[in-house]
Amino acid sequence: MARRYDSRTTIFSPEGRLYQVEYAMEAISHAGAAVGVLSQEGVVLAAEKKIISKLLETAKSTEKMYAIDQHVACAVAGITADANILIGRARITAQRYFYTYQEPIPVEQLVQRLCDLKQGYTQFGGLRPFGVSFLFAGWDRHHGFQLYQSDPSGNYGGWKATAIGANSTAAQSILKTDYQDDISLRDALKLTVKVLGKTMDSAQLTSEKLEFATLSFVKPELLGFHQLSSEELNALLQECGYVATSSEEA
Amino acid sequence: MARRYDSRTTIFSPEGRLYQVEYAMEAISHAGAAVGVLSQEGVVLAAEKKIISKLLETAKSTEKMYAIDQHVACAVAGITADANILIGRARITAQRYFYTYQEPIPVEQLVQRLCDLKQGYTQFGGLRPFGVSFLFAGWDRHHGFQLYQSDPSGNYGGWKATAIGANSTAAQSILKTDYQDDISLRDALKLTVKVLGKTMDSAQLTSEKLEFATLSFVKPELLGFHQLSSEELNALLQECGYVATSSEEA
Amino acid sequence: MARRYDSRTTIFSPEGRLYQVEYAMEAISHAGAAVGVLSQEGVVLAAEKKIISKLLETAKSTEKMYAIDQHVACAVAGITADANILIGRARITAQRYFYTYQEPIPVEQLVQRLCDLKQGYTQFGGLRPFGVSFLFAGWDRHHGFQLYQSDPSGNYGGWKATAIGANSTAAQSILKTDYQDDISLRDALKLTVKVLGKTMDSAQLTSEKLEFATLSFVKPELLGFHQLSSEELNALLQECGYVATSSEEA
Amino acid sequence: MARRYDSRTTIFSPEGRLYQVEYAMEAISHAGAAVGVLSQEGVVLAAEKKIISKLLETAKSTEKMYAIDQHVACAVAGITADANILIGRARITAQRYFYTYQEPIPVEQLVQRLCDLKQGYTQFGGLRPFGVSFLFAGWDRHHGFQLYQSDPSGNYGGWKATAIGANSTAAQSILKTDYQDDISLRDALKLTVKVLGKTMDSAQLTSEKLEFATLSFVKPELLGFHQLSSEELNALLQECGYVATSSEEA
Amino acid sequence: MARRYDSRTTIFSPEGRLYQVEYAMEAISHAGAAVGVLSQEGVVLAAEKKIISKLLETAKSTEKMYAIDQHVACAVAGITADANILIGRARITAQRYFYTYQEPIPVEQLVQRLCDLKQGYTQFGGLRPFGVSFLFAGWDRHHGFQLYQSDPSGNYGGWKATAIGANSTAAQSILKTDYQDDISLRDALKLTVKVLGKTMDSAQLTSEKLEFATLSFVKPELLGFHQLSSEELNALLQECGYVATSSEEA
Amino acid sequence: MARRYDSRTTIFSPEGRLYQVEYAMEAISHAGAAVGVLSQEGVVLAAEKKIISKLLETAKSTEKMYAIDQHVACAVAGITADANILIGRARITAQRYFYTYQEPIPVEQLVQRLCDLKQGYTQFGGLRPFGVSFLFAGWDRHHGFQLYQSDPSGNYGGWKATAIGANSTAAQSILKTDYQDDISLRDALKLTVKVLGKTMDSAQLTSEKLEFATLSFVKPELLGFHQLSSEELNALLQECGYVATSSEEA
Amino acid sequence: MARRYDSRTTIFSPEGRLYQVEYAMEAISHAGAAVGVLSQEGVVLAAEKKIISKLLETAKSTEKMYAIDQHVACAVAGITADANILIGRARITAQRYFYTYQEPIPVEQLVQRLCDLKQGYTQFGGLRPFGVSFLFAGWDRHHGFQLYQSDPSGNYGGWKATAIGANSTAAQSILKTDYQDDISLRDALKLTVKVLGKTMDSAQLTSEKLEFATLSFVKPELLGFHQLSSEELNALLQECGYVATSSEEA
Repeated sequence: MARRYDSRTTIFSPEGRLYQVEYAMEAISHAGAAVGVLSQEGVVLAAEKKIISKLLETAKSTEKMYAIDQHVACAVAGITADANILIGRARITAQRYFYTYQEPIPVEQLVQRLCDLKQGYTQFGGLRPFGVSFLFAGWDRHHGFQLYQSDPSGNYGGWKATAIGANSTAAQSILKTDYQDDISLRDALKLTVKVLGKTMDSAQLTSEKLEFATLSFVKPELLGFHQLSSEELNALLQECGYVATSSEEA
Repeated sequence: MARRYDSRTTIFSPEGRLYQVEYAMEAISHAGAAVGVLSQEGVVLAAEKKIISKLLETAKSTEKMYAIDQHVACAVAGITADANILIGRARITAQRYFYTYQEPIPVEQLVQRLCDLKQGYTQFGGLRPFGVSFLFAGWDRHHGFQLYQSDPSGNYGGWKATAIGANSTAAQSILKTDYQDDISLRDALKLTVKVLGKTMDSAQLTSEKLEFATLSFVKPELLGFHQLSSEELNALLQECGYVATSSEEA
Repeated sequence: MARRYDSRTTIFSPEGRLYQVEYAMEAISHAGAAVGVLSQEGVVLAAEKKIISKLLETAKSTEKMYAIDQHVACAVAGITADANILIGRARITAQRYFYTYQEPIPVEQLVQRLCDLKQGYTQFGGLRPFGVSFLFAGWDRHHGFQLYQSDPSGNYGGWKATAIGANSTAAQSILKTDYQDDISLRDALKLTVKVLGKTMDSAQLTSEKLEFATLSFVKPELLGFHQLSSEELNALLQECGYVATSSEEA
Repeated sequence: MARRYDSRTTIFSPEGRLYQVEYAMEAISHAGAAVGVLSQEGVVLAAEKKIISKLLETAKSTEKMYAIDQHVACAVAGITADANILIGRARITAQRYFYTYQEPIPVEQLVQRLCDLKQGYTQFGGLRPFGVSFLFAGWDRHHGFQLYQSDPSGNYGGWKATAIGANSTAAQSILKTDYQDDISLRDALKLTVKVLGKTMDSAQLTSEKLEFATLSFVKPELLGFHQLSSEELNALLQECGYVATSSEEA
Repeated sequence: MARRYDSRTTIFSPEGRLYQVEYAMEAISHAGAAVGVLSQEGVVLAAEKKIISKLLETAKSTEKMYAIDQHVACAVAGITADANILIGRARITAQRYFYTYQEPIPVEQLVQRLCDLKQGYTQFGGLRPFGVSFLFAGWDRHHGFQLYQSDPSGNYGGWKATAIGANSTAAQSILKTDYQDDISLRDALKLTVKVLGKTMDSAQLTSEKLEFATLSFVKPELLGFHQLSSEELNALLQECGYVATSSEEA
Repeated sequence: MARRYDSRTTIFSPEGRLYQVEYAMEAISHAGAAVGVLSQEGVVLAAEKKIISKLLETAKSTEKMYAIDQHVACAVAGITADANILIGRARITAQRYFYTYQEPIPVEQLVQRLCDLKQGYTQFGGLRPFGVSFLFAGWDRHHGFQLYQSDPSGNYGGWKATAIGANSTAAQSILKTDYQDDISLRDALKLTVKVLGKTMDSAQLTSEKLEFATLSFVKPELLGFHQLSSEELNALLQECGYVATSSEEA
Repeated sequence: MARRYDSRTTIFSPEGRLYQVEYAMEAISHAGAAVGVLSQEGVVLAAEKKIISKLLETAKSTEKMYAIDQHVACAVAGITADANILIGRARITAQRYFYTYQEPIPVEQLVQRLCDLKQGYTQFGGLRPFGVSFLFAGWDRHHGFQLYQSDPSGNYGGWKATAIGANSTAAQSILKTDYQDDISLRDALKLTVKVLGKTMDSAQLTSEKLEFATLSFVKPELLGFHQLSSEELNALLQECGYVATSSEEA
């Protein structure tokens, strides 16, 4: 029965649902997970890599993490090609704002602009929704560090800690239990490892399967988006009780 | 049988109905309720929050309440992403009017402009109706405080008190019985609590589940749209006989 | 069988019918009735209100009666949001004419412009007809007082007395019997009351359920569109033998 | 079987037919008849009115007869709203020609322009044919008095006498028998009465049910399109042996 | 089975056929025949008229023969309204060429331009092919007298003698047998009569049912497209052994 | 099963096929064959004519061979009207290149431009592929004499000898066996006759059924595209052992 | 069941899949394989040719290898006509970048631009995805030698060694086992031969069936994209233990 109403975003089902938007979210629920945790000192973004091959040149294969501007970065779950389009748009939006007002774009404003674009793809014919969810980590002088989540419908919300992609419900439940408002950046990293350790499919957490990054002040006035190196990641995993594995074994 | 006619807004059914518009309203009937009450001293808007999580940063997650201009605000029920688009349009409409005429846009004119936009989405192909209803609270020098309700069809009306979203029929019935033309702003707040208390799904009213706001004169000549803080809201709930709950328990 | 031909205005049925236009008229036949009566002294427009609530702010909820220009007004039956679009267009058309020629637009010309617009929605794909019928009351120096009726097909005609909306056939039949060419404005009002009294669903005519207006010369050279107040309406109803009801009881 | 090919003008049936065009002609065959007769002294146009009500203001309800320019007029059968669009276009075409060349547009050129427009609606997608046939009466200095007939396909032809609308085949047959090349204008009027008398549904010919007009020289150099008044029409009917009926009895 | 592929020109059937183009040709095969014969002295065009009525004003009803420029004319078979559009285009093309180069457009170039236009209607969506075939008779200084035939697909060819419309295969067969390369214009006329006499449906050839025209040099340097008068045609028919019939009897 | 995927070029079948492109190729496989052979001294193009009539004016009926520029010509197999469009485009492309760079367009560049155009018709909605294959013969100062083949998909390749149209597989097989890299132009002509003799449907090769042309240097620096006259062709056929037939017998 | 969702890229299946994109990839899995291997000294691209004929002029039939700019080349697997379009776009993109910034476009930026274009064809109606995968070999001063793979979805990744087209999974598996990070260009060539030898359909590797190319520094500062000649290729095959075959036998 649902079938009659599920082939276009321009059709409401009798219950007022937009199935195509829900199907797009289904696509995301199979994608590698991404987790974000906000602390006073910065924001942690982490993601599970689905394509793992020692032949892949990770640095040139942006599957999960993207810097948008000096003060905003994001992690994605879903169709990478769709994400690329939106991230390209986000970067231009941020640059134009800076060019016009000579100050960085407020984080929420950037998020909303992308979400308004996404919404259009759920209301006009001849299009499909973007099959991608985002976690945005940002800092601005109005609200300090911020973490946003957006989905294919164009909805977004500000979160202290959240997860998207595979097993995101389980991940959110762990975050709800363990998150503390006064969490430190280091503890946020550990909490993220814990969440991924309990929700990822793989039997064993290894640095090959993960991407970790932080947005924080490297030194006063200098904000930095830092992707953890393989060594840093292994150290973190060991600190959390996981055995480090060399990339040779992968 | 209805099925033949329910997949587009460009098709009337043999009875002259537009099913897609009705389905859009169905989407709204599942959304968190919103209530508006007009008093001589100002307008009360209140809304039930559906996404409740201690991890959600409420201030950055505009689910239900939006300021449009200094003299107009609204509460929404339905698809948040759709609402964002219309609110963005409303803000620009208000600013352009001010820029052109150097005075605030009359409230009804603003409402009608949005409704005309909505109507187009019920008559042209390749689109779906906006899945969102609004309560607009406003003040202008022509008609003083005003409260409008609009729905996905593009219809609108001026009301003394009304409700949209889940259980709106029950809410309207209580309002009809208890509303007095000479109600004070404080009593309007209490009436709103009473309405939500009787119609919301949740067993217990708590400040976490609610958003309350008033549009009134903070001091002569100074109109203010004020969202009640958690403390103010708890105080109001207690005054109405509800036990205050700390956010820790949520 | 009709079904094959009834989903678009761009398809004639084998009998040469446009079902979508007929379905749009069906929508109107369920709407509150509107009656118009032409007299030498002016035109009477009256309408039955379908949404009746003491909480509704009638003055700000234009359901049935609209002034278009100083010399033209209309009553509508059908989808209010559709009517709003056409009325907005009518007002601009009238203003542009005045701006160009420095005299009021002739009434029939205004009616025809709207009807030409309506016609397009019955011939081009990706659209549905406007689901609204109009009664236009107007005066111009060429033809004096005039009364026009138009429907979703884009047809229109000049009438001495006519009715649209629910039970319009019955209403027209009464008008045909009782209308006199030399009717006075007061008698036209009474005739209108009689028609509505016999055709409205409600057991009892009350001022809450009705809107009455006249277009006539308030004083020489000064044309006025006057909506009857609750008091004036109650007086009229009493004069016609109906018991006045206070709004408190509604 | 025909059904597969009858829903669009952009589809030929296997026999090379355009069913939508034929369906549009079907619509016309139910419309009130119109008859045209050409004489050396002028052209007669006559039409049967379908909507007859003493409340209708005939002068302001152009159902069947339209002046296009000083030297061209027409009678229509079919969908009035469609006719209005084409007549508006015809008037502008005639005015533009006059403005450019400072002489009246030749009658056939005007007819062809309208027919070319009609043709487009039988070949492009997302449209339906115009559901209206025309009789054009005109005079120009090249060909004197002329009578043209056009149909929804965009075809047209010059005729000495012809009929469109209900029972047009029967009417054409009478015309073929009784028409004389040297017919006078008065005899042309009588022939028209005869044709309508034998083909109209109504038991009795009355002036209420008919519109008659002539295009002829009122005085040398002065061409006039003259619609017969009720009195003139009654006189003509009486002359043809029909009993005049007062409008009171209708 | 063919049905799946026969509703649009944008679909090839599995055998590589375009059914809509074939259906358009089917429409032409029911139309009145047209025959063209090329001689050294000029070109003969002839056509069978399908609509025969003594009330039809032939001169003003261009059903079959059209002059395009002083050196090009054509006969058509198929949908007249479609032909009108293409002939209008041809005339403008010829005039523009003359305006640009100050010499008449070469005949084949004109034919190809029309055929390129026709081709587009067989390849783009939302259109149907033009339902009309042409015989073009022309003269230019490059190739002298020429005769072309084009069909709805946009194909065209130069011919010495050919036929389109009803019974065109039979007509072509007679032409193949009887045509001589050194045929005189008079003999070409007689050959055309013979072809029509053997292929037309009507029991008896009469001047009412036929249109004949020649493109030839009236005097040196003066090319003329001459449509045979009723007298000339009757004389020709008599010369070919057909009894002349007066138009009175038709 | 294939049916679900064969009605548009915008649909891949589950096996990744584009059926509409394959159907277009099917159309070509029924068309008259065309053969091209490359020699050091020039290129031979030959084609089988499908429409053979002594009434056809071959010189004005370009069915199979077209000169594009002084250094490029082509033979076609498929829908002639489609070919005309592409050849018109090719001619303009060649002229524009010459106008811009003052040297002839390189042959492959011209071929690729046409193929890019063709590709678009296999990827965008509302279109069908061009139903025509080409053999391009050309010479430029970069690569000397060249022979290209292109098909409806937009693919092309450079060949020493190849065939398109009916029985092209058989023809290609003979070419593969008999072609020598150092073939002379005369031997290339004979090889072409041999190929057509073995693959054409007709019992007997005659000059009426064939078109032959060569692109070669007529004298140093003077490239010429030469279509063989009837006499030259008969001589060639006789040289290859075929009996010459006079055109009288056809 | 999948069928309902597999005819357009604008429809997600209930599992969130885009079948049309998967079908496009299916088209590629039948195409000739292409292999790329990155070494410190340069990049190897190799491809299997599907169309093998001694009559084919390989140099003018770009089936598998394309130079894009002096520092970027690619190998393709899939629909050649689609590849041509994208390669034309890539060349213009590279030239424009150079024109604007006076330095070669960074390789990844070029790849991403093409992928963004590809993505659009998976999200907008009336289009199909490009049926082609690419291996890009490039060098820039930021990242030295690089190898990228992209597919119809618009996804791309940087690889040390990878394969596309027929049997790409088997090829990737061999590459994973045998690839060494410090591989020399010569060893990379041999590894490529090994991979193709084990995965191609043909019983025997021969130079006719293969295309090999390297992007490396010919001399310091001079980057060269070099396609191996038949002799070089035979030498390489022999070195790898394959018997060289002369092109005569093919």
